[in-house]
Amino acid sequence: MRVLIWNEHRAEQANPAVAALYPDGLHGALAAATRSLVPNADVRTATLDDAGHGLDDLDATDVLVWWGHRAHDELPQELAVAVRDAVVAGMGFVALHSAHLSRPFVQLMGTSCALIWRESDDREHLWCVAPGHPIFAGVPQPLVLARHEMYGEPFVVPPPDELLGVSWYSGGEVFRSAAVWQRGAGRVAYLSPGHETYPIYHDPAVQRLVTNAISYVAPRGGRRPDLLACPSAATPPFLGGGA
Amino acid sequence: MRVLIWNEHRAEQANPAVAALYPDGLHGALAAATRSLVPNADVRTATLDDAGHGLDDLDATDVLVWWGHRAHDELPQELAVAVRDAVVAGMGFVALHSAHLSRPFVQLMGTSCALIWRESDDREHLWCVAPGHPIFAGVPQPLVLARHEMYGEPFVVPPPDELLGVSWYSGGEVFRSAAVWQRGAGRVAYLSPGHETYPIYHDPAVQRLVTNAISYVAPRGGRRPDLLACPSAATPPFLGGGA
Amino acid sequence: MRVLIWNEHRAEQANPAVAALYPDGLHGALAAATRSLVPNADVRTATLDDAGHGLDDLDATDVLVWWGHRAHDELPQELAVAVRDAVVAGMGFVALHSAHLSRPFVQLMGTSCALIWRESDDREHLWCVAPGHPIFAGVPQPLVLARHEMYGEPFVVPPPDELLGVSWYSGGEVFRSAAVWQRGAGRVAYLSPGHETYPIYHDPAVQRLVTNAISYVAPRGGRRPDLLACPSAATPPFLGGGA
Amino acid sequence: MRVLIWNEHRAEQANPAVAALYPDGLHGALAAATRSLVPNADVRTATLDDAGHGLDDLDATDVLVWWGHRAHDELPQELAVAVRDAVVAGMGFVALHSAHLSRPFVQLMGTSCALIWRESDDREHLWCVAPGHPIFAGVPQPLVLARHEMYGEPFVVPPPDELLGVSWYSGGEVFRSAAVWQRGAGRVAYLSPGHETYPIYHDPAVQRLVTNAISYVAPRGGRRPDLLACPSAATPPFLGGGA
Repeated sequence: MRVLIWNEHRAEQANPAVAALYPDGLHGALAAATRSLVPNADVRTATLDDAGHGLDDLDATDVLVWWGHRAHDELPQELAVAVRDAVVAGMGFVALHSAHLSRPFVQLMGTSCALIWRESDDREHLWCVAPGHPIFAGVPQPLVLARHEMYGEPFVVPPPDELLGVSWYSGGEVFRSAAVWQRGAGRVAYLSPGHETYPIYHDPAVQRLVTNAISYVAPRGGRRPDLLACPSAATPPFLGGGA
Repeated sequence: MRVLIWNEHRAEQANPAVAALYPDGLHGALAAATRSLVPNADVRTATLDDAGHGLDDLDATDVLVWWGHRAHDELPQELAVAVRDAVVAGMGFVALHSAHLSRPFVQLMGTSCALIWRESDDREHLWCVAPGHPIFAGVPQPLVLARHEMYGEPFVVPPPDELLGVSWYSGGEVFRSAAVWQRGAGRVAYLSPGHETYPIYHDPAVQRLVTNAISYVAPRGGRRPDLLACPSAATPPFLGGGA
Repeated sequence: MRVLIWNEHRAEQANPAVAALYPDGLHGALAAATRSLVPNADVRTATLDDAGHGLDDLDATDVLVWWGHRAHDELPQELAVAVRDAVVAGMGFVALHSAHLSRPFVQLMGTSCALIWRESDDREHLWCVAPGHPIFAGVPQPLVLARHEMYGEPFVVPPPDELLGVSWYSGGEVFRSAAVWQRGAGRVAYLSPGHETYPIYHDPAVQRLVTNAISYVAPRGGRRPDLLACPSAATPPFLGGGA
Repeated sequence: MRVLIWNEHRAEQANPAVAALYPDGLHGALAAATRSLVPNADVRTATLDDAGHGLDDLDATDVLVWWGHRAHDELPQELAVAVRDAVVAGMGFVALHSAHLSRPFVQLMGTSCALIWRESDDREHLWCVAPGHPIFAGVPQPLVLARHEMYGEPFVVPPPDELLGVSWYSGGEVFRSAAVWQRGAGRVAYLSPGHETYPIYHDPAVQRLVTNAISYVAPRGGRRPDLLACPSAATPPFLGGGA
């Protein structure tokens, strides 16, 4: 399984506290966790400032993991559409935390992807509401984050094809924090944990959740570029109802 | 719209505190709210101890509202199946609070309908996660219950066809507390508010929520008894593919 | 209910056979049917070549009906995004036939919206698979189109939130030809009938189907521009979990 | 994976033509196909007339495959409920053809499971509408059955959590012929191929479809009997919102 961890990689440069938490970048921490927990994964990383914004090789990517926050608009829309098309053809996509407003995720959802939020060290309990789902295998019930940014409802995404997790915040809000959508032959997972000023991706339970999601949305068959075209279909003689 | 409010009506007799809160029974309070807020409703009430357990007239019922708790098993399964069939043919069904374990609701869900719970005066915030849905029209965001029984995940029901509300509890849990399922031509709503030892159904916001649900699941067309039978279909000449 | 019927209006100019079938344009036929069958509708029409492509007044539109075919790419993407945002805020959207590839519909779906097709005078039977749904009220089971373009699976759209109709073609294919998706506070309906070289929109059963869809996706409450923004939320003292 | 193929096993005894097609019973043919195509499957068979109706060992069953037709009512309802509970706790269930009216399937669906039907040697094309889904891996598009019983809409089941296949019949009907529902930790698949008077289960493409479904609904984790109970939950000190 070829996994590409994509990170905007700006917070680490702008905020020394983030750099201290993630000396190898958020992508570095996620890549290390993936290598450790997904034995069959061939993991690469890419960032916004890479050549081609790091997305030159979508055809050779099975699962794309996305983290971004402040520079969503620096990604050309054509690349967001390219990601959408790769997903439709079978690639898995995992959007993390503030990637809810990233262009690829918005393109795949077809909504505003808005939510309410608050940075105030809320305690978060992330509860699995789909018992037995593989994305929650080995994840405690609930997954407790001692301090995290609050993301709250309404979360303006299409009704998930699989709603997996709901978060509770000490400030009084709730959030659909783990969900999956089908898009063509590909699947999209969203997981809310991951604000950059907390050591969230060093938490073994979060690492388990994220890497489970990577495994879950991995392609289940060969790439399907046919799902991007509208072919005219002749009536095959052997199919002809009236023939 | 012919509405039947069905209440087990045992808690009111066994517990003076409940009788004091609901001198006309839980059904009485719900009927009064429905008469007040659903102008076109013709409201009747029934209880477990009525003749025929109060269910003799399902054919003339457009929406059946159900409250029960300790005596679920006293309802014969045949009547639960009769309710299920009426729903399939188009009747609306609103299950309230502990009716999650009532025989009609379990029959309609096809699961255990289990959950976790705690009676400890939790504060509850019920958040709408489907903005603009008519069941939440005029309901504050969030709907706050100062004290209520906690119902928590996992709630073992099928994934709702419409997930509308999620509750937060001060003890740290969450719950999918407002949802709708399609069953044949009929619709089933579940709403968690309504523990009998609190004045929940005297709360105008809860009354609004419950009566909105009654209006929402009301039949959208004539009764469909055909959906209960499996007719053999001749090939109509005008439909014949090969003719 | 303020209904805007939008038509690309090119086929009528390029193809005399289409002009003969629809002397007032496809939009004219659809507008007449809507005026006749939706008594409370205030119906306007617009075309691609109008000023602002006819979309200057989305804020004052409750339901937007869309027909397009060959000139999808002449609509600026910003306007497709504006339609998406209007839907998220509550506007209804009805995509007809070849509008499956229109920019607003693709934007709302998040997929390629591909399908297979054939122009060969197939017979079509459109079956309701959601008995009792208001979009099929008064529509025969099946709705028979003596001759129509074939649209076949796979139809690369997200799993519908409500799958309502499936079509059979004499050539041997099937198609999910009537469906609804929720997008924020708004709803999107897709209906496949409507190839321009057949008198489909003069068929009373199709008129019923289309106008039922217009009524169904009409807003159920006031416009919700808040669903387009991501506000920071202070912890209200009365909501504070730990307060 | 422990697979139990359950067959009513009455048609084979009552109808010599069925016995000739399936000398080892429908269960024998299905078991042989499963042994051949699912290498890790430990396959057993059971029939209605076995001791305990063949269902004594649900706890040791990972996937239960069900075929029945004329004797549905001879299975005690308690056993249908036991199957439902096993599914909720994680067991997979595959209902084949006329098992749409079997007591376990009806119990799991919560509807009438009615449909229309015709025995008249219709040609059937079963189209995948979920491209890339593992249940259709290696299955031709469409899967063609030269002659089969027609099953038509409306099929009165809850909206599937995954609609995978739709059938076309030469008589002019359509049917949602392959679908999956989530029930607690378990999954239920329905596949319509399999009328007993045709050699359907000797068709390699159907064998592939059925065995793919067996693999798909196999448990994804350990058994979850906790999903059948409603435990009272103390507020754990480490979870306490206000602590």
